[in-house]
Amino acid sequence: MAIILGDHQYGKAESRLVRIYRDQPRHEIRDLNVTTALRGPFEPAYLIGDQSNVLPTDTQKNTAYAFAKSRGIEAIEQFGLDLARRFVHDIDPVEGARVEIEEYAWERATVDGTEHDHTWLRKGQEIRTAAITVDATGEYVIAGLKDLVILKSTGSEFAGFLVDEYTTLPETHDRIMATALDVKWRYDGTELAWDSIYADVKKIMIKEFASLQSLALQQTLWHMGTAVLKAYPQIAEIRLKAPNKHHFDYDIGRFGLENRGEVFIAADRPYGLIEATITRDDASDAGEAWRFSAGLA
Amino acid sequence: MAIILGDHQYGKAESRLVRIYRDQPRHEIRDLNVTTALRGPFEPAYLIGDQSNVLPTDTQKNTAYAFAKSRGIEAIEQFGLDLARRFVHDIDPVEGARVEIEEYAWERATVDGTEHDHTWLRKGQEIRTAAITVDATGEYVIAGLKDLVILKSTGSEFAGFLVDEYTTLPETHDRIMATALDVKWRYDGTELAWDSIYADVKKIMIKEFASLQSLALQQTLWHMGTAVLKAYPQIAEIRLKAPNKHHFDYDIGRFGLENRGEVFIAADRPYGLIEATITRDDASDAGEAWRFSAGLA
Amino acid sequence: MAIILGDHQYGKAESRLVRIYRDQPRHEIRDLNVTTALRGPFEPAYLIGDQSNVLPTDTQKNTAYAFAKSRGIEAIEQFGLDLARRFVHDIDPVEGARVEIEEYAWERATVDGTEHDHTWLRKGQEIRTAAITVDATGEYVIAGLKDLVILKSTGSEFAGFLVDEYTTLPETHDRIMATALDVKWRYDGTELAWDSIYADVKKIMIKEFASLQSLALQQTLWHMGTAVLKAYPQIAEIRLKAPNKHHFDYDIGRFGLENRGEVFIAADRPYGLIEATITRDDASDAGEAWRFSAGLA
Amino acid sequence: MAIILGDHQYGKAESRLVRIYRDQPRHEIRDLNVTTALRGPFEPAYLIGDQSNVLPTDTQKNTAYAFAKSRGIEAIEQFGLDLARRFVHDIDPVEGARVEIEEYAWERATVDGTEHDHTWLRKGQEIRTAAITVDATGEYVIAGLKDLVILKSTGSEFAGFLVDEYTTLPETHDRIMATALDVKWRYDGTELAWDSIYADVKKIMIKEFASLQSLALQQTLWHMGTAVLKAYPQIAEIRLKAPNKHHFDYDIGRFGLENRGEVFIAADRPYGLIEATITRDDASDAGEAWRFSAGLA
Repeated sequence: MAIILGDHQYGKAESRLVRIYRDQPRHEIRDLNVTTALRGPFEPAYLIGDQSNVLPTDTQKNTAYAFAKSRGIEAIEQFGLDLARRFVHDIDPVEGARVEIEEYAWERATVDGTEHDHTWLRKGQEIRTAAITVDATGEYVIAGLKDLVILKSTGSEFAGFLVDEYTTLPETHDRIMATALDVKWRYDGTELAWDSIYADVKKIMIKEFASLQSLALQQTLWHMGTAVLKAYPQIAEIRLKAPNKHHFDYDIGRFGLENRGEVFIAADRPYGLIEATITRDDASDAGEAWRFSAGLA
Repeated sequence: MAIILGDHQYGKAESRLVRIYRDQPRHEIRDLNVTTALRGPFEPAYLIGDQSNVLPTDTQKNTAYAFAKSRGIEAIEQFGLDLARRFVHDIDPVEGARVEIEEYAWERATVDGTEHDHTWLRKGQEIRTAAITVDATGEYVIAGLKDLVILKSTGSEFAGFLVDEYTTLPETHDRIMATALDVKWRYDGTELAWDSIYADVKKIMIKEFASLQSLALQQTLWHMGTAVLKAYPQIAEIRLKAPNKHHFDYDIGRFGLENRGEVFIAADRPYGLIEATITRDDASDAGEAWRFSAGLA
Repeated sequence: MAIILGDHQYGKAESRLVRIYRDQPRHEIRDLNVTTALRGPFEPAYLIGDQSNVLPTDTQKNTAYAFAKSRGIEAIEQFGLDLARRFVHDIDPVEGARVEIEEYAWERATVDGTEHDHTWLRKGQEIRTAAITVDATGEYVIAGLKDLVILKSTGSEFAGFLVDEYTTLPETHDRIMATALDVKWRYDGTELAWDSIYADVKKIMIKEFASLQSLALQQTLWHMGTAVLKAYPQIAEIRLKAPNKHHFDYDIGRFGLENRGEVFIAADRPYGLIEATITRDDASDAGEAWRFSAGLA
Repeated sequence: MAIILGDHQYGKAESRLVRIYRDQPRHEIRDLNVTTALRGPFEPAYLIGDQSNVLPTDTQKNTAYAFAKSRGIEAIEQFGLDLARRFVHDIDPVEGARVEIEEYAWERATVDGTEHDHTWLRKGQEIRTAAITVDATGEYVIAGLKDLVILKSTGSEFAGFLVDEYTTLPETHDRIMATALDVKWRYDGTELAWDSIYADVKKIMIKEFASLQSLALQQTLWHMGTAVLKAYPQIAEIRLKAPNKHHFDYDIGRFGLENRGEVFIAADRPYGLIEATITRDDASDAGEAWRFSAGLA
């Protein structure tokens, strides 16, 4: 019964990298948060403190900033592939690399009705994400978004649920449904039109959320996910995580006022949390792509 | 040398209030965070625990939700005035009321190229604010915005500064300038076109930020503030608070790469912080309007 | 190539539950954040919006608060087992339950040198965690802690590492090592002395962190993990996640001052991130215990 | 009606500074967050972008780190005075300086029953604060603490309050009272036993909170503040800000269970907010000491 080192990885988390393109009068901006992690034969670092196989996390950071210039940043999926391949192919002991990137959106400032050349406002809405894994089994690209806060003021029901002795929730056939979407989808392939697919996947999900007369947040997620898979055979599977951000009717009947779905208190905690994977019955093997942390078997 | 009670106020902070207008197929949404505070003869509550003058904070909250229905929410400035007047005029012991409101913006979801009737995405950018004070000296309305994150990739310099023995900063004639604006302006009058002025003040500030070849963030703030005061005689003064969100050139010269203002590391802390009031030499007296907290003399 | 529903779970997240024991003059407090999730045949909710198998998340919350009274809260591991068994054994369609609990520590206020009977101060340091899974394959208990911020001002080195063309980091034989530990360990068995083992595991990890002359954070984690496994055969494996919270020497040599490891700037981002599992070569199978989210295969 | 520059200040915010004392085998640590701001004739920077009077915020940061070595850090009040005097006395155009410091507490790790020489755990509880102002009118020291989270499980009532048509709150004679104290007190004098007074002020406030049978949070604050002023004639006034962190009885009566003040849901928002100044009828003039921001008249 020996004690052994199991899964492990190490890297540099959250390098905030801003890339400006200024070759033209109209500048461009890409604003990233880059995390890299390496996997391989690093046991000696753990067992005896021998770093000879360990490329410093500081070097991983330097590589990201150097590549921002030498390779440039088109789509974050491509930039992640470039970085991951560099570590796995060029650094001898490294066997696997995982690169996670968040991208923050900016929109051009409007001045006198015209978009400005070099001034932007940080755009809210969602954070775009990418998680790239390169190892001996292949190359995997997971794209996604998080913090896309979306709300509908009608077209949502919740009724007919299971009842036990602790159930006090009334049924409803008209409520606010609101969530902050956290969605990831895995691509088949590494040569795709990353930016345009991203934009379209977002559009599809918003349409389904808005259009479906929802009987449950679960049903909404299913419709969103299946619509994406139908539209894009290049997407092997999609995983959705959606907090049910409760908006409770405020009881103003006590003050002689009728509340016909008009006045709500938005609650912070607790919140419902719905998670689902929507996939294909012949989906390709995902390898290590979904292992975001070494701490997960 | 007696110990005495000085300034004091009490209230309910951060009531999250969502108001849906659904009289038409095309719903409307207003999403607020409401804080109310009362001032008056509440010494007995402190000195002997006598609450007979104390309107519970729970009641203040109820009032906000009731008014969301009975008065409705047009501009947050008007809603704040309604609430503050209610407390001061209708609740006998109350002498002063302060209402602070944050408003979160939503934009309609687009489905098949059309704006949706009852689905929205949370819009990022700024949070709109209002701070209303009503007391024996008058009525005061302060409008504002915060967290408006804005960045320009050129057109910003910093040079010719004072140097002492601890100064190591190099001069620069081309840097990124980025900030998260926190601005408040005080109106003369309580019957104004709140929404349109707000939108225009924001537009003016963005234009100045973008257009000025800036020699310092201070100069940029001055131009923003004066442009607003020039455009709106109804605005008595404006206060700006702007963190200098540093973007440092990343040293990729070590790797044989030239960085011509293209690759930056965005720093979290520390950051510069510039604060300024821009006013008129005959500005009206502000009464208690700028006292956000009882803790400030 | 059909589109199908893959893994899924749903529940109520972050119910803030405070339990006071007041049967004696000396009260006791347990302060929890409870998240529950159910797994089972909930496909109809997704595919056709049929909730007949769905126990509302509101009911899950009610159950937690009811159990806080009827079962009481001794260790959070036991409370989690009680809740998970309730859902799996008593609610017919439920096949698996996962309960995650955070516990916040309080320490008694000291008044005139004596511990007070019913007043506490929130204690900092770590948050204690538990993650319980009950399903057809068995019962699994994972205990842990997070946000245990620990720092040593000497006894840490980093040298002899791999060098490539992007490596600029100098070697060091004396640096600050600081981290915010996030550790989880899986027990064999469900009838253990939860509170005393927890306290001892924490003590062991702190001792190893402090005592080892560290050649790398990896080595420190290995020593911490193996010491825990050696001390407790009831612990099957342990997973550690440790950000390297960098403290950089501040260059005061520019001002004629020598910095002998005395003046540091603590950086926010980026940070190193080391993750490792330490296990046994005959560790029991973990079933679904480490699947915190349905989104992970 | 000219537009003019009103109050203004600028500086460097949130320099995270860690100072280790390692002259003895038993090291010492001070962990600070330092913010400095300067006031003076900086109009040219605003009006015409002329920085010749402007000491860069980067220099202010350098000064703090240099002083951490050359002057050392005993109490944060003294360190703040050292920095503020430096700017006002040695840098010609500077007329006023304001230094705000947060200090994070650490406690020694215990290893085998003994306090360790160079390993610490971050201690929770409160953050200690200091705000020093030096200008032509004098020197002012405000000390304080924030985020001291304290809770009592009985000994708190709320009844006999004012009732209007929106009042629905029931009276209570036994409730949880919990808050996160944010307190500041202003000293007379600049040569005081900063550390010991701080520790004792905290002890006094905790005792009053615990011991008083409270009829309102207002009454508790009054007792805390007056006890501090009675104990320390060196303290001119004290300002307290206390959110009422509501803990609501959870209705488990619906499940046949009696809740005798045992099961609570801790709410996030909204919360009550009580603010009060307790002073002396002959308190010294506070000058600019309480102006934390240039944005406040």
